[in-house]
Amino acid sequence: MTVPKPPMRDALVAAAFRLFLERGYEQTTVDDIVALAGVGRRSFFRYFPSKEDVVFPDHERCLADMTEFLGRGGDEHDPVARVCDAARLVLRMYAENPTFSVQRYRLTKKVPGLRTYELSVVWRYERALAEYLRRRFAGQPDGTLRADVIAAAVVAAHNNGLRSWLRSDGESDASAEVDHALALVQRTFTPSAGPDPAEDVEDVVVLVSRRGAPMWRVVQEIEATLGHPPDRQN
Amino acid sequence: MTVPKPPMRDALVAAAFRLFLERGYEQTTVDDIVALAGVGRRSFFRYFPSKEDVVFPDHERCLADMTEFLGRGGDEHDPVARVCDAARLVLRMYAENPTFSVQRYRLTKKVPGLRTYELSVVWRYERALAEYLRRRFAGQPDGTLRADVIAAAVVAAHNNGLRSWLRSDGESDASAEVDHALALVQRTFTPSAGPDPAEDVEDVVVLVSRRGAPMWRVVQEIEATLGHPPDRQN
Repeated sequence: MTVPKPPMRDALVAAAFRLFLERGYEQTTVDDIVALAGVGRRSFFRYFPSKEDVVFPDHERCLADMTEFLGRGGDEHDPVARVCDAARLVLRMYAENPTFSVQRYRLTKKVPGLRTYELSVVWRYERALAEYLRRRFAGQPDGTLRADVIAAAVVAAHNNGLRSWLRSDGESDASAEVDHALALVQRTFTPSAGPDPAEDVEDVVVLVSRRGAPMWRVVQEIEATLGHPPDRQN
Repeated sequence: MTVPKPPMRDALVAAAFRLFLERGYEQTTVDDIVALAGVGRRSFFRYFPSKEDVVFPDHERCLADMTEFLGRGGDEHDPVARVCDAARLVLRMYAENPTFSVQRYRLTKKVPGLRTYELSVVWRYERALAEYLRRRFAGQPDGTLRADVIAAAVVAAHNNGLRSWLRSDGESDASAEVDHALALVQRTFTPSAGPDPAEDVEDVVVLVSRRGAPMWRVVQEIEATLGHPPDRQN
């Protein structure tokens, strides 16, 4: 019985990480990696444009998946819920391989160049979410502004949850961490949880009241807000 | 009468930008810059660690100003308003020199390395805002999560307004653009504009109603939401 060899791309990633952990990232060359993986330099550069890219081998695929997922989303999807689900695709990529993700997290914290590389990847995810939201909010007041703000909030929430999981060495529940964080963003930005800034706010009254408040006080507050009793107006 | 020479640091920035615009960023070396400015290489590196740093000569000072400004903020300041004001320090830096800011914006769009550099600067501003908010929200439920999300939202709103101004070639009103964008974030995250996620939401009823709705319908909706009429409960 023969054990199948891992695909060359996986072998290169495995060799690279073994060396990064043993010698450090800066001290490892592409020549070292290809020697350990038993392939030529040209094979390395067929899969990875640079040494940095081998640290993040799955982001291009994940970005493509995210763009495709958002492209499939029609008007039947709530736009904020849709971008939250798109962010969950990134989490899934990390959670599929906890050991690798935790090792990379430690490596990225130590190497400023990798941190910068990661920021540019995060920025591309954020742009993908923002562009989807800009399409969904097209023609609405402050459409691009709201798109940019919500995309940034979703990315920040996702990364907060993801980092909690990575700091737990992959021991905590990744999905629960990220779901909790994204739920806060959805509560904040979904119209049913408050007034939609895209609607004419002049037409809407928002009243926040303690659950135990007596009804007469609630009515009084509404009347005070409106400036006149609406049942006499109609 | 003698015209005073500009300080050496300003002369280096001016020489660098003249060459970047004439020849392109990649085609300009540090040697070209120091030759035009009439100083030695060591003078350049005394002010700027690398060629990239001369493109963004004021961010370090601005980051220090922001950190100092946030450090001075006590409990008397609304935390969200304070980070919005901190973001306005960045805008002021750009608006102080519109021609330079617009030139740099065009340059940064063309050179991927500068774009990456800028992302790491933006990330440092965002961390400064988030760290301030984490201190303010310390001990509150989801304090760090809310801090990260609000910091990201403030940066995204600021950058949306800033980019609008830069795309107008500095012709529009920079402060008005950014104030408008930050106002949306303040409305979204300031407790008086809606329920505070840090409070026990179980205790609060939010009702959104059309201004023209008759009072009996408003009361009916509140009762339906509560599951029982609150005036009989108390």
